[in-house]
Amino acid sequence: MQFACCLDLVMAQLFLALLHYPVLNRTGDKIASAITNLDLHDLARSCRTYGVPACYVVTPLKDQQALANRLIAHWVYGTGGEILPERREAIRLLRVVESLSAALEDISGQSRQTPVLWATSAKNGRDVLSHREARDLLSRDSGPFLLVFGTGWGLAPEVFDISDAVLEPIPGVSGYNHLPVRSAASILMDRLLGRR
Amino acid sequence: MQFACCLDLVMAQLFLALLHYPVLNRTGDKIASAITNLDLHDLARSCRTYGVPACYVVTPLKDQQALANRLIAHWVYGTGGEILPERREAIRLLRVVESLSAALEDISGQSRQTPVLWATSAKNGRDVLSHREARDLLSRDSGPFLLVFGTGWGLAPEVFDISDAVLEPIPGVSGYNHLPVRSAASILMDRLLGRR
Repeated sequence: MQFACCLDLVMAQLFLALLHYPVLNRTGDKIASAITNLDLHDLARSCRTYGVPACYVVTPLKDQQALANRLIAHWVYGTGGEILPERREAIRLLRVVESLSAALEDISGQSRQTPVLWATSAKNGRDVLSHREARDLLSRDSGPFLLVFGTGWGLAPEVFDISDAVLEPIPGVSGYNHLPVRSAASILMDRLLGRR
Repeated sequence: MQFACCLDLVMAQLFLALLHYPVLNRTGDKIASAITNLDLHDLARSCRTYGVPACYVVTPLKDQQALANRLIAHWVYGTGGEILPERREAIRLLRVVESLSAALEDISGQSRQTPVLWATSAKNGRDVLSHREARDLLSRDSGPFLLVFGTGWGLAPEVFDISDAVLEPIPGVSGYNHLPVRSAASILMDRLLGRR
């Protein structure tokens, strides 16, 4: 595989969403997962690094929304951001929303275009979009895209049903497909948006 | 930049080390940092994904060694690994050692060759080794390499002094260079070892 040259400019805006609902648990039930503090920090820092304009933290649970918003307030308006201004720059990209629809609406409102929805999975399926094709689409298109990651044991089937494409899984060298979502998201941002 | 084709075989063994000493704190003092539970999980899972044979957790502090070894025991021999066998496969790659020298000696003992030592930094310096060059070296060489990451505010100068090379920083698109070590390590493994 060969990526486009380092001089290509990514024209489209790629947004991210981290879903805590609807996702699967270890036994395949649909659940709302709990927020992991470090997921939010790591995704925000990777988004800031790769020029992602916003990362949606999706949970319908009010107490979990409050937890995420408290974390954000600490780093954006509180002492966290005073001590580490570079962390504030990252955390301010987080947006807590109650559903994937709300994230899509927010992007549509900003961009005046419905975003192309890309789902991710650790499992290989048919008709997946390769990282090279995805990178090419981002460099050719001018509209918004939303790349969705699942917590827990991955996105529930209904997310795949409404997605425009599913990205190929990250190919390790050993068949092992249990990367943390923090790592998978970082690697995908690098593959889709990184300078080479 | 253009990576070698997907058919090339990585011949050398690339080991990882996560240093908690000697590293710098926010004000530039040399310190021993505390172990972060999720660093160990995430690095182990990324190492397992990319075929890294071992990841050294370096700390001279006995209580921190005990903490890391307790975590490893839970996942390798305890109930953790019974519930999540795929996590056991990853965590068993972790080796707690008291110093970088001990990690180098361990690899030398296994490989009967002194490993080539590569340091990492978020800052751009002179004479850095590009990721492409590093990938080419790994695919051409047969000896062991050790890739070292710092916690806190990065590796202390004495680590750079004994390193054979410093890898170029991960180029974001915005000049922001504050990736978590968990993300930086995952992205580098993908750039140096990943299938494309």
